[in-house]
Amino acid sequence: MTDTDHTQPEPADERDLLVERIIHAPRSAVWAAWTDPATLGQWWVPAPAVCRVVEFELRPGGSFRTEFSEDGVDFVPQITGCVLEVVPEQRLVWTTALTAGWRPAEQPFITAVIDLADHPDGTRYRATALHSGVAQRDEHLELGFHAGWGIVTEQLTALVEQR
Amino acid sequence: MTDTDHTQPEPADERDLLVERIIHAPRSAVWAAWTDPATLGQWWVPAPAVCRVVEFELRPGGSFRTEFSEDGVDFVPQITGCVLEVVPEQRLVWTTALTAGWRPAEQPFITAVIDLADHPDGTRYRATALHSGVAQRDEHLELGFHAGWGIVTEQLTALVEQR
Repeated sequence: MTDTDHTQPEPADERDLLVERIIHAPRSAVWAAWTDPATLGQWWVPAPAVCRVVEFELRPGGSFRTEFSEDGVDFVPQITGCVLEVVPEQRLVWTTALTAGWRPAEQPFITAVIDLADHPDGTRYRATALHSGVAQRDEHLELGFHAGWGIVTEQLTALVEQR
Repeated sequence: MTDTDHTQPEPADERDLLVERIIHAPRSAVWAAWTDPATLGQWWVPAPAVCRVVEFELRPGGSFRTEFSEDGVDFVPQITGCVLEVVPEQRLVWTTALTAGWRPAEQPFITAVIDLADHPDGTRYRATALHSGVAQRDEHLELGFHAGWGIVTEQLTALVEQR
């Protein structure tokens, strides 16, 4: 066990998956790390893989597109989604069920809800993945949700706390 | 030809389908007919079929659910979707790619964009169906998009103009 291990709360809906973390920094710093494309690219995929944020239009209907590379040379699409809700320093919602301009996606998968709340030690960070059903949730579990989202949340935490 | 026939403009994107109509009434009246559940139920499916608006939460992330009945007795789900954008008397966007609370849908199909603009004769009404691709657009054409959306737009027009 390291100090990054802690019991994860259950999501409110059984179709969802949740990562929660206390980050020792104010909400404004966590929000900036999420919404500045250059900073997001530094933590959004597990190292040593590399992320490139291609488009991030921070408004409902805006495009959210990232690319992923194992070697830093060849990039493939990772997220192709649409921003749904933006409440600065509090809440960010995007989905891969839609693309830019709310167009239905060819390969829908999740809606991500990022919630930031004040906490005595800084910020309570919650990232919830919403799925259409339990089967899609289980598919995401098998793809390694907890390892993947856990690692990148640690990367986010390390980056924000060292700033 | 009747006076309800007129050339339909092409949608801006080839993946989309569009119905346009001049309605001899102000935008406020058309908006009310779209957003009041009881009124929407009067025109949203081609008569003599019957529509029941089960939920219509007029805010981003809100639920939009309608039911359909051939005989007025047995109802089956029609639209199970999510409201995306609400600009009163101007623009309404909802999708079946998501359900209430932006959850990915099990059976995504369209995003609907309803645009109301001032026109010398009243309101220029535009209803656009966005699809993920040309194949999904063609599927919608085969399901009878132009007949279906055309008929209900005439029903909307008749209802609003006689008020």
